[in-house]
Amino acid sequence: MPDATSAADLTLAEQASLTSGATMWTTTPVRGVLRALTLSDGPHGIRRQRGDAGDPLGLTGSVPATCFPPAVTLGSSWDPELVRRVGAALAREASVLGVDVVLGPGVNLKRSPLCGRNFEYFSEDPRVSGVMGAALVDGIQSLGVGACVKHFAVNNQETDRMRVSAEVDEQTLRELYLPAFEHIVREAKPYTVMCAYNKVNGVYASQHHWLLTQVLREEWQFDGLVMSDWTAVNDRVAALAAGLDLEMPPTGTDDEILTAVADGRLDAETVATAADRLLRLRDRVDRAERFEDWDADAHHELAREAARCGAVLLKNDGGLLPLDPTARQHIAVIGEFARTPRYQGHGSSHVEPTRLDSAWDALQAAFGSDARLRFAPGFTPDGCPAPELAAQAVAAAAEADVVLLFLGLPESAETEGADRKDIDLPAEQVALLHAVADANPQVAVVLANGGVVSVAEWQDRAQAVLEGWLGGQAGGAALADLLLGVHSPSGKLTESIPLRLADVPSHLYFPGGDGRVVHGEGRYVGYRHYDTLDRPVAYPFGHGLSYTTFAYGELTVTETGRNAWTVEATITNTGDRSAHETAQLYVAFDEPHPTRPRHELRGFARIGLEPGESGQVRFALTERDLAHWSTARGGWRVDAGAFTVEVGASSRDIRLTAELSTPGDGVVDALDAMSTAGEWLNHPVGSVLLQKALAESPAGAFLAQADPVQLALGLGVPLVKLAALGMGVTREGIEAMVEAARAGSLPAEPA
Amino acid sequence: MPDATSAADLTLAEQASLTSGATMWTTTPVRGVLRALTLSDGPHGIRRQRGDAGDPLGLTGSVPATCFPPAVTLGSSWDPELVRRVGAALAREASVLGVDVVLGPGVNLKRSPLCGRNFEYFSEDPRVSGVMGAALVDGIQSLGVGACVKHFAVNNQETDRMRVSAEVDEQTLRELYLPAFEHIVREAKPYTVMCAYNKVNGVYASQHHWLLTQVLREEWQFDGLVMSDWTAVNDRVAALAAGLDLEMPPTGTDDEILTAVADGRLDAETVATAADRLLRLRDRVDRAERFEDWDADAHHELAREAARCGAVLLKNDGGLLPLDPTARQHIAVIGEFARTPRYQGHGSSHVEPTRLDSAWDALQAAFGSDARLRFAPGFTPDGCPAPELAAQAVAAAAEADVVLLFLGLPESAETEGADRKDIDLPAEQVALLHAVADANPQVAVVLANGGVVSVAEWQDRAQAVLEGWLGGQAGGAALADLLLGVHSPSGKLTESIPLRLADVPSHLYFPGGDGRVVHGEGRYVGYRHYDTLDRPVAYPFGHGLSYTTFAYGELTVTETGRNAWTVEATITNTGDRSAHETAQLYVAFDEPHPTRPRHELRGFARIGLEPGESGQVRFALTERDLAHWSTARGGWRVDAGAFTVEVGASSRDIRLTAELSTPGDGVVDALDAMSTAGEWLNHPVGSVLLQKALAESPAGAFLAQADPVQLALGLGVPLVKLAALGMGVTREGIEAMVEAARAGSLPAEPA
Repeated sequence: MPDATSAADLTLAEQASLTSGATMWTTTPVRGVLRALTLSDGPHGIRRQRGDAGDPLGLTGSVPATCFPPAVTLGSSWDPELVRRVGAALAREASVLGVDVVLGPGVNLKRSPLCGRNFEYFSEDPRVSGVMGAALVDGIQSLGVGACVKHFAVNNQETDRMRVSAEVDEQTLRELYLPAFEHIVREAKPYTVMCAYNKVNGVYASQHHWLLTQVLREEWQFDGLVMSDWTAVNDRVAALAAGLDLEMPPTGTDDEILTAVADGRLDAETVATAADRLLRLRDRVDRAERFEDWDADAHHELAREAARCGAVLLKNDGGLLPLDPTARQHIAVIGEFARTPRYQGHGSSHVEPTRLDSAWDALQAAFGSDARLRFAPGFTPDGCPAPELAAQAVAAAAEADVVLLFLGLPESAETEGADRKDIDLPAEQVALLHAVADANPQVAVVLANGGVVSVAEWQDRAQAVLEGWLGGQAGGAALADLLLGVHSPSGKLTESIPLRLADVPSHLYFPGGDGRVVHGEGRYVGYRHYDTLDRPVAYPFGHGLSYTTFAYGELTVTETGRNAWTVEATITNTGDRSAHETAQLYVAFDEPHPTRPRHELRGFARIGLEPGESGQVRFALTERDLAHWSTARGGWRVDAGAFTVEVGASSRDIRLTAELSTPGDGVVDALDAMSTAGEWLNHPVGSVLLQKALAESPAGAFLAQADPVQLALGLGVPLVKLAALGMGVTREGIEAMVEAARAGSLPAEPA
Repeated sequence: MPDATSAADLTLAEQASLTSGATMWTTTPVRGVLRALTLSDGPHGIRRQRGDAGDPLGLTGSVPATCFPPAVTLGSSWDPELVRRVGAALAREASVLGVDVVLGPGVNLKRSPLCGRNFEYFSEDPRVSGVMGAALVDGIQSLGVGACVKHFAVNNQETDRMRVSAEVDEQTLRELYLPAFEHIVREAKPYTVMCAYNKVNGVYASQHHWLLTQVLREEWQFDGLVMSDWTAVNDRVAALAAGLDLEMPPTGTDDEILTAVADGRLDAETVATAADRLLRLRDRVDRAERFEDWDADAHHELAREAARCGAVLLKNDGGLLPLDPTARQHIAVIGEFARTPRYQGHGSSHVEPTRLDSAWDALQAAFGSDARLRFAPGFTPDGCPAPELAAQAVAAAAEADVVLLFLGLPESAETEGADRKDIDLPAEQVALLHAVADANPQVAVVLANGGVVSVAEWQDRAQAVLEGWLGGQAGGAALADLLLGVHSPSGKLTESIPLRLADVPSHLYFPGGDGRVVHGEGRYVGYRHYDTLDRPVAYPFGHGLSYTTFAYGELTVTETGRNAWTVEATITNTGDRSAHETAQLYVAFDEPHPTRPRHELRGFARIGLEPGESGQVRFALTERDLAHWSTARGGWRVDAGAFTVEVGASSRDIRLTAELSTPGDGVVDALDAMSTAGEWLNHPVGSVLLQKALAESPAGAFLAQADPVQLALGLGVPLVKLAALGMGVTREGIEAMVEAARAGSLPAEPA
């Protein structure tokens, strides 16, 4: 029997069976005509569970695979090409392990540093999330394996994630929470999308027709399959009707589908369409070449490169870093994390690595058998009191020339399913830093954490701080590369580091309660808040130091069409080391009363430069980059006026600016009786009509002799209210003017 | 023919005619059976327009009446008894002027200092607004004249006020924007309520059935008449159906009502009900005694008392104030506002005063014919450059012992119909302060402004700052009383003074655009924001100095019932002047992650004390004072637990605290299949059922051996999801448990 080619080849019952999985990790086969597809958690490594192992939640006992750095680290590289290569390596391993679809990337926004799953996400900025997510999809699907973009949408916390309603207005959705998904769907065409657990404005994402059908399919032209997050379906009939194609894992409720079709509550066509999407997914993944093995060494090396590119040098006073292995310094390596790395988070993305590098091993290897290195664990990662360990560490520090102090969060602090309660390092680690720095002020702190930790209270005690994030299985070696100057750090922050938790814009709302989380801060997440309000932060979005320095110059902006520009700048490596720099493009609107963020990232470019070398970075700027979402219009809107292009090294280190202007989008909004006198006077046709009407009325006489305050008041009054005030303008007269204005409305002027 | 006693005495057409006014300021009479009622703007003076004067907007040409200080000043007295007396005086003047209903008080919350109409409102806090508003209603209605509480609801800005939709979640409505109205309706029983212009969550307040009928009438038991703000009705049929009884002014659209009834789109009963409410209003105001005159001197004196009690002494370094008229100091009185007072705002509340005191006149009178006083205008209030005036002022300052510098906002900055763009004093006035202080550092600044002005940039140049607000027609004399120590200042801030505009919690959202204003800051308005986030302010809510000092002691809390307490404290005048102090009661919940404001005002008490005298203040604390609104429950909720009672002199000057606890409201929320395992285990019956079920299932075995992270994750999972995960718990089993838990739910325990 040939494979089924469309749902028409299947019975309704068979179609219904396809809309739910067969097991925890496979779709339902149809004997003889459709094989089961295998799904596997990702996204920074393949988590293929063994058939005979594992727990009921499906989190343990997976087959070894390369553990790449999670998204927090990949994102900090600002290097889509690197991420694409990681995606291709993931696909190769997926293929070997018999996996058809990798459940990633996760592109939810980092709304709060407390979100327990932030290590799986890229950024507080949708452009970074979208570009990085698209690169991972590109890489995975380059070998024909499917990617699954998740969690759609507004899944920004773990607390009560299976029930909570994210209350968020459409402008915020359109400008902040949806664009990463939109970018990936439009640019990378992922085979699948995974819905979120949570509700969005009261409706489960798994049953959200506006999200899953209107926006995702009709507006963005998504033609793949939508699956549920695991157990996210609460009503299969409602989910199918909304546009969810595949429930995972199964709940054995196919009969509900059949009954609903029989009752007329569900269109049979809806079931067939969902089944067709599964068949289309099968067709797509079946085109993939199947591989028998992968090069474990090469993948480990790629993981090392990724970890290296993602680490961010936050500070480096006096050039303490890099260390010189030939300088015969005595170096104290302190902190259990140097020996026992924190390299990934807890939860469904937890990968069983093929091997595991520690920084301590890598440093020893770099220094050879020389006895200048000394290790002291200093603390236990589980937070147990360890005064003896601390004392040993202080003694080691006192005898050393330099201290490398490895601090970080315990694994239990960062997990799917739970949010953090604070952003502090464990108190005993901060106490250790103080004790160590008292003994030896030449301290470089190396951090291991997937979610941001506050540094404001302790960073003055360290000369240097290297944020290593979670480095994956080769993170230890990557850190050694950076500490020793084999490579220069090049990562930059994709999220702001606040001075304190209470400064975080979502602080008063996160994680909510009573079944809902209000997005009170709206679009003002991360630097959109701090920069608009000019509030201090510990380190701004986009920040990251290098062992060299870069000069920015020669900004040129070329208009390439109506509301389209190319922006170019020259970056010069003005230091003495080979290194990479990531230049960032922001669009800024200077408004005394903010109606939008002060500036927003619209592009970024990473460039590698030898000492003294110059290179050009280039960005494309589109109409959409200037637009804001108009809820009144139900679409994007560009008002005519001036704006500023900024090119910089971080959101607070703008090096080059250019003033530009846009003619706007050319759309003339229609007038009606509730349009104000001011709006009428600003309208090309309406102004003529209104001035004529006013000339003949008491209202005109009043306005002609009004003082400025009265005039301003009058201009803000809807036209129809003038009739209500008996100002000689009748309701009928206004209706006639509305008709005339509509008939005579000017069309958008061509460019 | 006798007066109509109910709508049944009228035809449908007559009833319909009653639901709209006859003229700008009168309701529609029915010949022989119903007189026209006269309405008049307030609320700090009667603005009765002459029949033969005035402009089309109805703002000018009114008959003289006492101009009391507007609400900003009355509110700052924290003295409901004073406000009640002002209300009674207003009613007397209304009666003389033939007014049946005074259009006030305005009790909208001061969400942003930019709101152009803040001078007409009491506070950023709903308790202050509610108590003060109720006092004014009590006073007005004590003579049988009707009051009109406005603007219902969420009318917190002037920008686009006739169209803008205030987007605000129900918890914020219930806890912040509605309680002042609720308090007044329940406690003072106003004859009328005026709807707001704006929309609330997309629906015009004039057509908002939930607001006008469900909440106002059904929940709060309002039995009066709801009228529109002037021209606020956009659809008379929809407005009537929603619960709006009277459209003002008329639009001549009675036919629309009759047609709608004929078409069955509007219930005739609805029209009759609205007409009945007008008849009831007529019955109420007809019971009022009619007065022929009022004692203009006594009312002026009352206005002076009110202005004096509302002025707030912000700072007084070195005891610069009060001045001693016998000390033979040379005093420079600088600033045009000393001679030409700013004493009220612009717009519908603008009163034609019966007389007008200036501070300059009052100071001259106090000092007698002595030549020690010298006046210099310093600046023009309209902001025109006046270098000669400034130079004269500096010369006067240089020759004086002390400078009284009268600064303030021009009248055009504060008006109905327009919001401010900043909170700064005019730049030329600040420059004058610097020049004057350079010449003579002994400067006391006296402020005249209805909306808060920032003081952070300049207050270091002044030894003392007396915030006089807008003082009404006797404000000048009141200021002289305070400056000379005839009375000690006793006003306190009913709104926080921020360090800068960008610190205001609504800054990123106010005044919105695109037809809507999002209340992103939610409940965190004013001190609820600053105190919860521990952000610095220039002066906190509740702050105000005196010429004496007060000690707080002997806090006692007496439980008077279930969730009911009496809180008492002793205040002692520890200085050497007779004065008044306002003690404030806050309820605080100490939460590391705020789910509510850090503390909220729940009571206040003003007490007058002679030097050395002690007196007791007393507050009642009720269950509602501890409650938060639960949207999930659709009602108020009190969780069991600890809280703190704070008694202080301001929100940041807490003098006494007591730790208390509440057993909660006793309501046990029902469990369902989407309740989490943790919620089941916290439920008195559910815990028994779940533990039994788990003991027999793989889920139980898993949880029994789970690590803490897994356990926490498991406890957060809705029970029904365990079935989806195949953990041995079936959906049917869970449904049975839900039934059992409901049947066995414990009722609320009696107190």
